[in-house]
Amino acid sequence: MDMPIDIQHQQMGYDRTATMFTPEGHLLQVEYAEKTVRLGSSSIALSCSDGVLILADKRIDDKLIVPESAQKIYEIDSHLISSIAGIVSDARVLIDKAQVLSQQNRLTYDSPIEPELIIKEISNIKQQFTQYGGARPFGVSMMVAGIQDNKPRVFTSDITGNYFEYFANAIG
Amino acid sequence: MDMPIDIQHQQMGYDRTATMFTPEGHLLQVEYAEKTVRLGSSSIALSCSDGVLILADKRIDDKLIVPESAQKIYEIDSHLISSIAGIVSDARVLIDKAQVLSQQNRLTYDSPIEPELIIKEISNIKQQFTQYGGARPFGVSMMVAGIQDNKPRVFTSDITGNYFEYFANAIG
Amino acid sequence: MDMPIDIQHQQMGYDRTATMFTPEGHLLQVEYAEKTVRLGSSSIALSCSDGVLILADKRIDDKLIVPESAQKIYEIDSHLISSIAGIVSDARVLIDKAQVLSQQNRLTYDSPIEPELIIKEISNIKQQFTQYGGARPFGVSMMVAGIQDNKPRVFTSDITGNYFEYFANAIG
Amino acid sequence: MDMPIDIQHQQMGYDRTATMFTPEGHLLQVEYAEKTVRLGSSSIALSCSDGVLILADKRIDDKLIVPESAQKIYEIDSHLISSIAGIVSDARVLIDKAQVLSQQNRLTYDSPIEPELIIKEISNIKQQFTQYGGARPFGVSMMVAGIQDNKPRVFTSDITGNYFEYFANAIG
Amino acid sequence: MDMPIDIQHQQMGYDRTATMFTPEGHLLQVEYAEKTVRLGSSSIALSCSDGVLILADKRIDDKLIVPESAQKIYEIDSHLISSIAGIVSDARVLIDKAQVLSQQNRLTYDSPIEPELIIKEISNIKQQFTQYGGARPFGVSMMVAGIQDNKPRVFTSDITGNYFEYFANAIG
Amino acid sequence: MDMPIDIQHQQMGYDRTATMFTPEGHLLQVEYAEKTVRLGSSSIALSCSDGVLILADKRIDDKLIVPESAQKIYEIDSHLISSIAGIVSDARVLIDKAQVLSQQNRLTYDSPIEPELIIKEISNIKQQFTQYGGARPFGVSMMVAGIQDNKPRVFTSDITGNYFEYFANAIG
Amino acid sequence: MDMPIDIQHQQMGYDRTATMFTPEGHLLQVEYAEKTVRLGSSSIALSCSDGVLILADKRIDDKLIVPESAQKIYEIDSHLISSIAGIVSDARVLIDKAQVLSQQNRLTYDSPIEPELIIKEISNIKQQFTQYGGARPFGVSMMVAGIQDNKPRVFTSDITGNYFEYFANAIG
Repeated sequence: MDMPIDIQHQQMGYDRTATMFTPEGHLLQVEYAEKTVRLGSSSIALSCSDGVLILADKRIDDKLIVPESAQKIYEIDSHLISSIAGIVSDARVLIDKAQVLSQQNRLTYDSPIEPELIIKEISNIKQQFTQYGGARPFGVSMMVAGIQDNKPRVFTSDITGNYFEYFANAIG
Repeated sequence: MDMPIDIQHQQMGYDRTATMFTPEGHLLQVEYAEKTVRLGSSSIALSCSDGVLILADKRIDDKLIVPESAQKIYEIDSHLISSIAGIVSDARVLIDKAQVLSQQNRLTYDSPIEPELIIKEISNIKQQFTQYGGARPFGVSMMVAGIQDNKPRVFTSDITGNYFEYFANAIG
Repeated sequence: MDMPIDIQHQQMGYDRTATMFTPEGHLLQVEYAEKTVRLGSSSIALSCSDGVLILADKRIDDKLIVPESAQKIYEIDSHLISSIAGIVSDARVLIDKAQVLSQQNRLTYDSPIEPELIIKEISNIKQQFTQYGGARPFGVSMMVAGIQDNKPRVFTSDITGNYFEYFANAIG
Repeated sequence: MDMPIDIQHQQMGYDRTATMFTPEGHLLQVEYAEKTVRLGSSSIALSCSDGVLILADKRIDDKLIVPESAQKIYEIDSHLISSIAGIVSDARVLIDKAQVLSQQNRLTYDSPIEPELIIKEISNIKQQFTQYGGARPFGVSMMVAGIQDNKPRVFTSDITGNYFEYFANAIG
Repeated sequence: MDMPIDIQHQQMGYDRTATMFTPEGHLLQVEYAEKTVRLGSSSIALSCSDGVLILADKRIDDKLIVPESAQKIYEIDSHLISSIAGIVSDARVLIDKAQVLSQQNRLTYDSPIEPELIIKEISNIKQQFTQYGGARPFGVSMMVAGIQDNKPRVFTSDITGNYFEYFANAIG
Repeated sequence: MDMPIDIQHQQMGYDRTATMFTPEGHLLQVEYAEKTVRLGSSSIALSCSDGVLILADKRIDDKLIVPESAQKIYEIDSHLISSIAGIVSDARVLIDKAQVLSQQNRLTYDSPIEPELIIKEISNIKQQFTQYGGARPFGVSMMVAGIQDNKPRVFTSDITGNYFEYFANAIG
Repeated sequence: MDMPIDIQHQQMGYDRTATMFTPEGHLLQVEYAEKTVRLGSSSIALSCSDGVLILADKRIDDKLIVPESAQKIYEIDSHLISSIAGIVSDARVLIDKAQVLSQQNRLTYDSPIEPELIIKEISNIKQQFTQYGGARPFGVSMMVAGIQDNKPRVFTSDITGNYFEYFANAIG
């Protein structure tokens, strides 16, 4: 077989479910979902000395769309904003969960939730969808930017549910 | 392999379940369901200065059908109407859910539900059917038009569960 | 590939489960189930000025069958009759549900159920069997004819769970 | 493809699960189960003016079998007998259910159950096994003969869960 | 295709699950399980005028096995013995259930259980494993011999869950 | 087809799930799991006049492993030891269950559990994993050696959940 | 077939689910997951006379990542640290469980948890994901180093859920 390894793996079906490793130890469905993220429009987050900044490309071609409805920047809480790249309806599910988590934190502890706790919970949900069968991974990268103890924090979670803190980061 | 990429993907089975990404990051079953929408008859929604307007093509060829029964415009609540394109029986399920949501809002808050809340809940249901296995996506696009605080609002939700607000929009 | 599109789709397996769209947006298992309906014997329903009429072809070849037991016209309630085309045992399940619904309406509201409510509930059940996996669609078209506020009404529900009101209609 | 349509459908796998329609609208697994019935030994039921009669071919080749244990005629209740053709262990499950239903009727209403109610319940169970996945259809035809209001009644239920009343009938 | 029908059916996959009928109405997985029974060592049961007798071939080649531990004759109750042919660990599950049933009968009715009731319950369990998916049939034939009202009774249950009473019988 | 029967069965897929019989009545996944046992390092058990003895080959090549942590002989209770061959992590699950069973016996009956009861419960668990789908068989043979009423007893349970008592036995 | 045995097994599909043994008794999906571990960056653990030491290669190429957020050494409890190689988001799930177990031990017994108890519970979770279907194995090796009774202990758990104690060990 002289075919490139990619084509071989596709023909042998290693890329048909998210719960199958290739002989080299890759999860191809997860890698394909990362392509979905790159198909989306871009967002940039910056951690500045006096706050956080997110820039997002709305990329609306249709002039009949009400621009405000094509938002790419979501308010999770008064101290937390987020942007995404990838499948917008998948992202909305995660943003909804983040908003609920944030309100629960305020009710339980009477204090704003830490940005890292939000990104960790979101990332844990994403991880589950790469390990259990019967569903596909979330096709979305997500940035959360916020203020914690007067300090700016910027986090990005990828498809696999891995996340890092960044000084500055771009997705999409 | 000199075949077009579409045929290749069909032959390799990337389009057999809604929960599988192609190597390029597409969800083919979802794209096929969008074809179903385009096979349906058209509806047009307009947001006017003093209200909202939905026009729908009933497309009844059978003169023995009672025309009123072939409605394409549904009343969700006294301030909310809707039209759809695609599989009519799928749409009916979603319209039923919208009507229940609307009544629950009146009972709980004693006020008409916001049009965006309806379209968001409907879109969240649609999103689930593109992510979890064991069922097919809803084969229907849905427009919701209504009045909120004396202002006209028009929303359209696509197959993936993504939605926008429009000044004017056509589906089907 | 010079084969007709039908044969191609069969060979590529788009017609193996009810929950799979073809690249053109069709649900082939549902279309095949419609063939089952056409294999059945015919029924005709008419909405007349002073009532409703259903004619059904029993098509009994076996003279040893007690003719009354091969009924094709079912009484759902004293103001509602029904006929079907397709798999008779599938239809019996739906007729049973219609009879229970009808009695529940009398118990709850002390009034006869509206014919459209019956056909809508039956159609919603059918729709589910075209969207969720693990079962096959109901192989049956069903006509419900009845009296509502002294006016005759005739409805027919197809395989997909879509329904219309008719002045007159034939199935099978 | 010049192969007969039967062979084509077998090669394309339309006959692998009970929940799949062929392009012509047939359910092949159900038709195969009917072959199982014809492989069984025969039973004949007659509705006479003063009672019902069932004749069954035990077909015991093994002289070491105690003949009484190879019964093909089952007593469901004092007014109801039954015979079957097909997979005997499948039939025993259905006979057990019929006996329980019959006793429940006596306990609840203090009267013998109507023969048609028995055959209808048995047939409803059979229908489910032709519509839902994860199990195979019951490989058995079943005759129920009994007395209702001093009148003889004979019913036969086929593989699909369809049933008729007969003046006389043979299965197997 | 000039291949024998057996090979054809194997190649077409009719023998891959216990819940699939062949075009001739056979259940091949069940027939294969019967081969497992014939691979086991033999047992013989006799109904004598003054009791029952079971002879079983232990077939132990390994002299380091403690002979008593390789028993092929099981005591279900003081009036009931059993022997099996096929997969010994499958049989142990059924013997365990028989012992529990027997003790429950003594507790509930203060009398020894009838041998036929034991073989019927065991056979009903076996039948389920030939009809429902997600498991394989029990690979075991089972003889139950016992005393009822001072009379000897010998029963044998096959793979399908069918059973007969015998004057004398051999399995394996 | 001139291929050996092994290769034929592999190509026809009879060895893909533990719940499928071959045409000859074998369970190939179970037989493959037995190969796993033989890949493991060996253990020998002896029933002596004054006690039981288990010898196990730890086979540690890595000098950085703390030897005590590579134990192959497990204490189930003060009168019961065990050794295994095959997948060590599978064995640990079974040893854990054996330890719990043993403690429950002491709590309930205030006496040491009989060695055969332990091996029987472990074997019943193993049997289930060869009959039900959705999991693989335990890839482990297990010896249990202990004292009962001052007499030494040695038992070995194989992959299928079958077990014997031995004077002496080796696994792996 | 002159292909190497690896390629043969891949073509015959023995490596498609984690719950299938090859004819040689291997679990290929588990072996592939071990490749994933080797793709990760390395960690080294040492058991010293006066404590434990873990060194981990963070391998951050992106200078915009906040270095502290790319930690590879996790604190499970004040006496327990851990490092991992493989899929970082999988590891986070296991670290979370370890932290909860550790706190539960302090609450229940008012004492620090033993390091071996942590590694055993984590390994039991991993074992389950190699035996039950519907999910993939955890793609992560995990080292746990800690102090027990003033003595240093270092444990490593591999993909299969097997673990050893080490004087010193490297993963990745």
